[in-house]
Amino acid sequence: MRPFQFSVPTNVYFGKGAEEKAGDLIKEYGSSKVLVHYGSSFAKKSGLIDRVEGYLTAAGLEYVELGGVKPNPRLSLVREGIALCQREKVDFLLAIGGGSVIDSAKAIGIGCCYDGDVWDFFCGKNKNVTRTLPVGTILTIPAAGSEVSVGTVITNDETWDKRAVNRGLMRPKFSLLNPELTLSLPPYQTACGAADILSHMMEHYFAADMESDVTDRLGEAGMRAIIHNARRICENPQNYDARAELMWSGSIAMMGFFSVGRGGNWASHEIEHPLSAIYDVAHGAGLAVVQPAWIERVWKREPKRFLQFAQKVWDVDPSMYPSEEAVVLEGVRRMRAFFQEIGLPTTLRELGAEESRFREMADRCCANGTVGGHLPVDTEDVMEIYRMAW
Amino acid sequence: MRPFQFSVPTNVYFGKGAEEKAGDLIKEYGSSKVLVHYGSSFAKKSGLIDRVEGYLTAAGLEYVELGGVKPNPRLSLVREGIALCQREKVDFLLAIGGGSVIDSAKAIGIGCCYDGDVWDFFCGKNKNVTRTLPVGTILTIPAAGSEVSVGTVITNDETWDKRAVNRGLMRPKFSLLNPELTLSLPPYQTACGAADILSHMMEHYFAADMESDVTDRLGEAGMRAIIHNARRICENPQNYDARAELMWSGSIAMMGFFSVGRGGNWASHEIEHPLSAIYDVAHGAGLAVVQPAWIERVWKREPKRFLQFAQKVWDVDPSMYPSEEAVVLEGVRRMRAFFQEIGLPTTLRELGAEESRFREMADRCCANGTVGGHLPVDTEDVMEIYRMAW
Repeated sequence: MRPFQFSVPTNVYFGKGAEEKAGDLIKEYGSSKVLVHYGSSFAKKSGLIDRVEGYLTAAGLEYVELGGVKPNPRLSLVREGIALCQREKVDFLLAIGGGSVIDSAKAIGIGCCYDGDVWDFFCGKNKNVTRTLPVGTILTIPAAGSEVSVGTVITNDETWDKRAVNRGLMRPKFSLLNPELTLSLPPYQTACGAADILSHMMEHYFAADMESDVTDRLGEAGMRAIIHNARRICENPQNYDARAELMWSGSIAMMGFFSVGRGGNWASHEIEHPLSAIYDVAHGAGLAVVQPAWIERVWKREPKRFLQFAQKVWDVDPSMYPSEEAVVLEGVRRMRAFFQEIGLPTTLRELGAEESRFREMADRCCANGTVGGHLPVDTEDVMEIYRMAW
Repeated sequence: MRPFQFSVPTNVYFGKGAEEKAGDLIKEYGSSKVLVHYGSSFAKKSGLIDRVEGYLTAAGLEYVELGGVKPNPRLSLVREGIALCQREKVDFLLAIGGGSVIDSAKAIGIGCCYDGDVWDFFCGKNKNVTRTLPVGTILTIPAAGSEVSVGTVITNDETWDKRAVNRGLMRPKFSLLNPELTLSLPPYQTACGAADILSHMMEHYFAADMESDVTDRLGEAGMRAIIHNARRICENPQNYDARAELMWSGSIAMMGFFSVGRGGNWASHEIEHPLSAIYDVAHGAGLAVVQPAWIERVWKREPKRFLQFAQKVWDVDPSMYPSEEAVVLEGVRRMRAFFQEIGLPTTLRELGAEESRFREMADRCCANGTVGGHLPVDTEDVMEIYRMAW
């Protein structure tokens, strides 16, 4: 096991009506003016935004609104948010939505406390995040785990570059998780979320360069639970319990619990980034396409782990298959079948990607060298992964 | 899933040399005078205490020492610690040891900030813990999970009453976990720790009054990992990796991860308390005796869960047994066999308990009514559990 540091300082409140705590919690931080940040018109039309603003008012807080966050959140809106917060002297950011809204709020937070351009943090011009506005979240889409994580991923909508910043300071102060708010999530979006959560678990699972047995066993159990509950939601989208399980899975997947004693891999995420940046596909759908092909490309470098994955997560019985390769590939086949079952694409073709742009995508992915904290892949590997996923 | 609140504010540093951070971390809290609290003479003789005091001095901190904490930590020493800290104007408590030392430090912490007698907090005379001295820990015995938990259990050595207090405020600020410090732990103490950790997982697992699938799967995986690594340590006590896994298991078992969406049961802990209070047996050994008998007594009230436990934790194949009862009891048999394998007692007789005192023990256990947050047991149940464990 590698040495590690672990804590989960974000205060998670989970259950029906959790969002009602927003006003009182923000007040505890001594804040007085809130940015209510959200994405889709659904959050507004459903009455959620108005309801939450009611809790803020009841707690004696003022607020301004900024909606319109899109999936793969845009730098332009982040800049708009920074200007608005500085003008209105906002001192707390409340993100209501999924990972995109939360990531956008985190970026606004660090931008508000910085004299230069916020993109500096994303392109390495300024690495020192020393201050930020506090962020709280009301989660409506279980997927990214941004509600408990230290990271934000922003897309520069001038260059279509998608980049991440990770700093402890950016972790939300509190996150309010009410599974009821996810009952109306459309099947496709739910499935994309499940694929994203599963992928987060896999990015940790496939980063083990040293033994860490407890983390392996917990990871396998977590992945099985995600698969199980995504299927249950498919059968009945109104199943509160299954929605609750998936929502909680999304948070624990990014708490650091499953990266303990190892690091993170994140190659598949990097390989997916050009896809969602260029074609604006849903991140989870892109992962469902890319991750199986990534396994097909790299498994021979560490057969034992991929065999374990096929057996313990996908129930492949090795005694039924003629070779290690057959076991691993049967695991991959079952993973693709699962993604299809919950309504996701498993080929780049289905996503509308063009073969003629593979080189451009691979170059973009590997602009700074190989990707992947473990079993790193280079431009040629990535090209081949795109071809295998075609 | 029940509603819940979740966070792990304790900052855990895990790995070789973790204890070297003590001085710098304490300084970050603005403290200047430290109580170095420990138990066995081993911690002193091994040079650990001196080494840590060196880190404190290097960080410009002053300190006073209080050793002598015994298993089932005593109220008398807590009182002595409070007087010492008040006299010496101590503003940080550093516990170096296992759960007993950490529990003792937590009790000293709340006692130092209270005008009355510290026992008031334990016997319900004062329920409001509003202030405490900050506590940091250097763990040397993986077992209680007190290094990340909100609780302390203290034994009143005038009345031999063993009582608990749980408050968020009491959670350690940081915990330094170096598995190397556990390499020299004697087999019996290691086994007692493993039984305690396993029991903590079970107390959560057997508290599920509503579905919580993710927590179930993680719990089963966690229990299997504990069993696996306890066996590996038995084979080779110098196995750093297995020691590391067990140490981390002990912490996560008490972090709240496994009680999410349910509560805690704690009946077996309550049934064990009179044993360790009267006979001063190691807590883990008492649990190894009591917990199997508890299952034998209560399983019929919730067969599904105990069947699941036998299958998923102890690999009992139900198709091989004639009845549900046979499956559950085979699980219990395997659990007892595991405890014996790692060198623990599984009968009250072996612990030196007297049949003639069962009534006294049961009355003491149920002094405030039934015990167990789920499937509660009364005095007659407890009598029967002692008889079954005889």
